[in-house]
Amino acid sequence: MAVQTKTITVSTNGYSDVVDLTNKVEEILVEQDINTGIVSLFIPGSTAGLTTIEYEPGCVQDMKNALERIFPESDQYAHNARWGDGNGFSHMRAAFLGPSLQIPFRSKHLMRGTWQQVILIDFDNKPRNREVVLQFIGE
Amino acid sequence: MAVQTKTITVSTNGYSDVVDLTNKVEEILVEQDINTGIVSLFIPGSTAGLTTIEYEPGCVQDMKNALERIFPESDQYAHNARWGDGNGFSHMRAAFLGPSLQIPFRSKHLMRGTWQQVILIDFDNKPRNREVVLQFIGE
Amino acid sequence: MAVQTKTITVSTNGYSDVVDLTNKVEEILVEQDINTGIVSLFIPGSTAGLTTIEYEPGCVQDMKNALERIFPESDQYAHNARWGDGNGFSHMRAAFLGPSLQIPFRSKHLMRGTWQQVILIDFDNKPRNREVVLQFIGE
Repeated sequence: MAVQTKTITVSTNGYSDVVDLTNKVEEILVEQDINTGIVSLFIPGSTAGLTTIEYEPGCVQDMKNALERIFPESDQYAHNARWGDGNGFSHMRAAFLGPSLQIPFRSKHLMRGTWQQVILIDFDNKPRNREVVLQFIGE
Repeated sequence: MAVQTKTITVSTNGYSDVVDLTNKVEEILVEQDINTGIVSLFIPGSTAGLTTIEYEPGCVQDMKNALERIFPESDQYAHNARWGDGNGFSHMRAAFLGPSLQIPFRSKHLMRGTWQQVILIDFDNKPRNREVVLQFIGE
Repeated sequence: MAVQTKTITVSTNGYSDVVDLTNKVEEILVEQDINTGIVSLFIPGSTAGLTTIEYEPGCVQDMKNALERIFPESDQYAHNARWGDGNGFSHMRAAFLGPSLQIPFRSKHLMRGTWQQVILIDFDNKPRNREVVLQFIGE
């Protein structure tokens, strides 16, 4: 059993930019001395989240629409009233979607669905550079 | 420390069918050579999700109602416009609920609440066969 | 590689009380014989959840407002009709937010954002005593 910690650096456009991390995660997995186990992904910061989706333009657009409908940018947010940075909507989206995601792998392959990609969504109201933490535990 | 990977096969009715996995997870846990650790559950595919709930008919009905209210099946989805498979609502529900769940166990018992069951929700718009991945890590 | 299981006891006010667990998690992390790995947090029970947020009064208020808007306490819930305990809204909030959260650590430091705190939200409709399970896996 071993644990390996890696990071992926991503530049985003903010505003619920959806970034497909799948290829990078699978490239890093191949390089580790672990064949079977779990990769835990975590996004440091309180205005971004991780999940899986079928990464095709329709679903990506639907995700942006759903986020804006459920947590509208133009709503009144107490965070904005206190701090004036205008990203109250970003904090809500991030807290609901959550910062962590775990995916099992076997023989160095993620046990995901064929049409299921690993995504980062950057909810902030400006472009950001993000560091996603990957931690591999297994043998 | 050891890692053990197992799968549970489930037949669902789709349309937010809620399936209680608790007994199967606990049966498989007892069979492993691991007493204390964590079980990570993951659902391959982009139209299903995992969480916990009090599995009784009222909460199950409330969950279906809440899903339909927040992500209505009849809304316009860009995924449907592109692919014509009509399950845009399924993809949104799955991305929000998330595909992974972790539960600690000690002395071969899940450290869950008495009224807290482990559930799969199949959001797709047809019956499906699903394989849930369980990964046990511990000692 | 080792696994260590600990619990944090928290008294809450219910009604989506947001409790910052960050300091307690970090204190317990320092005491473990593990330097690098992951901490898995889990809340037993079906009316509470875990996530991360910028723990400042604005975001905390926004979270309560968003929860009440998306899952109103006064809606009709089948759970309430069957059991009469009036906390149908609590169950929905908990199932959507989820009971588990994972955070990697390196050299005994959580790899979280500076403004990203670990929170428990107690959705129940009365004060509760909660036991949050922490499981540390690493080396």
